[in-house]
Amino acid sequence: MVLLCRNSRSLLRESVVCALSKQASSPSNIRRLSSAIPTPPRQVIFSGIQPTGIPHLGNYLGALKQWVDLQDSVPSETKLIYSVVDLHAITVPQDPQRLRQYKREVLATLLAIGIRPERSILFYQSSVQAHAELMWILSCTASAGYLSRMTQWKSKLSLSEDANAMDTGSKAKLKLGLFSYPVLQAADILVHRATHVPVGEDQSQHLEFARECATNFNHTYQPHLIAPQTILSPAKRVMSLQEPHLKMSKSHANPLSRILVTDSPQEIKKKVMAARTDSINSVSFDPVERPGVSNLLHLLSILDKQSRSPEELGTLHAGLNLKNFKTLVAETVAESLDGIGARYNEVMSRDDGKYLDHVEKKGAEKARESAEETMALVREAIGF
Amino acid sequence: MVLLCRNSRSLLRESVVCALSKQASSPSNIRRLSSAIPTPPRQVIFSGIQPTGIPHLGNYLGALKQWVDLQDSVPSETKLIYSVVDLHAITVPQDPQRLRQYKREVLATLLAIGIRPERSILFYQSSVQAHAELMWILSCTASAGYLSRMTQWKSKLSLSEDANAMDTGSKAKLKLGLFSYPVLQAADILVHRATHVPVGEDQSQHLEFARECATNFNHTYQPHLIAPQTILSPAKRVMSLQEPHLKMSKSHANPLSRILVTDSPQEIKKKVMAARTDSINSVSFDPVERPGVSNLLHLLSILDKQSRSPEELGTLHAGLNLKNFKTLVAETVAESLDGIGARYNEVMSRDDGKYLDHVEKKGAEKARESAEETMALVREAIGF
Repeated sequence: MVLLCRNSRSLLRESVVCALSKQASSPSNIRRLSSAIPTPPRQVIFSGIQPTGIPHLGNYLGALKQWVDLQDSVPSETKLIYSVVDLHAITVPQDPQRLRQYKREVLATLLAIGIRPERSILFYQSSVQAHAELMWILSCTASAGYLSRMTQWKSKLSLSEDANAMDTGSKAKLKLGLFSYPVLQAADILVHRATHVPVGEDQSQHLEFARECATNFNHTYQPHLIAPQTILSPAKRVMSLQEPHLKMSKSHANPLSRILVTDSPQEIKKKVMAARTDSINSVSFDPVERPGVSNLLHLLSILDKQSRSPEELGTLHAGLNLKNFKTLVAETVAESLDGIGARYNEVMSRDDGKYLDHVEKKGAEKARESAEETMALVREAIGF
Repeated sequence: MVLLCRNSRSLLRESVVCALSKQASSPSNIRRLSSAIPTPPRQVIFSGIQPTGIPHLGNYLGALKQWVDLQDSVPSETKLIYSVVDLHAITVPQDPQRLRQYKREVLATLLAIGIRPERSILFYQSSVQAHAELMWILSCTASAGYLSRMTQWKSKLSLSEDANAMDTGSKAKLKLGLFSYPVLQAADILVHRATHVPVGEDQSQHLEFARECATNFNHTYQPHLIAPQTILSPAKRVMSLQEPHLKMSKSHANPLSRILVTDSPQEIKKKVMAARTDSINSVSFDPVERPGVSNLLHLLSILDKQSRSPEELGTLHAGLNLKNFKTLVAETVAESLDGIGARYNEVMSRDDGKYLDHVEKKGAEKARESAEETMALVREAIGF
């Protein structure tokens, strides 16, 4: 069962809650544990975010806001686990100082957008050794051929989609970690016996692989691992303010191209006013001829409380000139991010920065407990 | 510096001790730690054995006896770490019950042959999560191409030496673990910052890879890992008693083909008397025409306190008939294994079997401490 959630917040809540209750009464979706093993007591939601610094509006609307919405809408017995996946960050070179800083920034952002550590387990992946431990175990039943067919390592090395892991061109560059990390990603999910994983569409291939890893393990040993269900994020692609054909991105050279979730209303206004549009000083939705204005309409639509489409909003605001239209967009964005920057600063500085360490330490303890429950079953089943 | 130790026990001791002292004064062999980091306080010897049940005479003379000799000859400040590498066992299918039993049998054998848990750290690899944790970290700087050129995964899949990991034939069978386990093997060594690793000649390729992994890490982060030196086991190939052209092996169908280190003098005699020889009822060393008799002479030579060659012993015993010669061989073998079987039984049954668990638990604690020292440096250097 794949959930495609729609834009409206209430619809999202409804469909997720509905999905979780359906799940409970739909055992065929979950591999049943052997009768000797107690059924997992509750639904478990897991997701992870790479530590690449303060998230931008695209990260927020595409994924992180859903984490908060899930937290605030699922039944209280549902376990929520959100991880800053620093073990994944090192598949590409990292500056250690910057990585440390980025981890803190992401953790602080999660708190600032509304993840409550007393409700959701928040931790750095590297704090829980069981992730790597289960990865090795899954490696022993995971097909190298399947991994070779996956596409992400190829794009990271700028290779063509039909490249083979052992081609001369690939061999010279490819590190094992960049080839094998989908198994770590599977372990991240399976070690907590997650039943539901909210992911973007570009990750659905990896979720399918995680399900395969669970099946391989369960077939070889005992049915202890749970093949997770995907909760597909609503398709909220936020585009660059400077190059409307590109996704908003952390790595773009021009900081005006992205809005960080911690930006102040003034910063947001500055960036939106500078957004690349065109010389027609009115509003209309026309993605081909007017990509810049259309992107702003698209963004307005994502944030619209009445879930109106970009077309509808284009007609509605047809009478505005670009300056007034951009002002409206800037205000709407600022409203949607209201308070995040202030809470971020508060969280970063609280207790001379020790509050963040404290939150992570507590979260890591809970995550270790959660993982240990699974690993005890896994080790026993293997004969360790 | 590669040590090729000769047969004599005293020579072995001398050369190892000599190697360890040379090592101390030969800094170019070890990558120096940055000045901020204290030099490791002592030499560390690490080795591992797969849990495949009670070892046979070939395992003992080819590797395990050297573990005991090292323990009893190196300076008291040298750290010795010996692991039953159960994480490696699962790269091929295992029956969980049998794996559990095999682990106990190997651990009990190590105690029975003279490994003293108050001197050497003895533990199951799966008890120390840092092995898998460091494996992932090393994966991120380890070359997939180098792994692909290694030969052991090919032989385990019965593929030719020029097979490529992504050939159609390989892909169908190859599990990631069978391809990536040299990185785990490197982690086993590097996580304890071993300076010396006793291995058989067939493992020297893997040691070279471990050195490469250390270099890659040190180059990418900080020079915290130590490229280990090989202590090559003396070339003590013990051949099958039934098929003189094959190595003595745990997997041979006929149990008469191998002597287990726990065999009683009666069992040893039965097996040696049944050893395949030929119809000439006298003794001479002639590996081509008389492989069976020559193998027994070779075995006698390995065990000879005066380090005489098989040729010399052939001449010395030329006057014996085969029955008397075999009796002599059986008695010499029994003497070399004297008491191991009894100590094995004692150790297996002590405290209703709980003694073994106790030894392993204590050893695992020490191994976790040893690994944690390294991992604290490693995590800090990466930015975790």
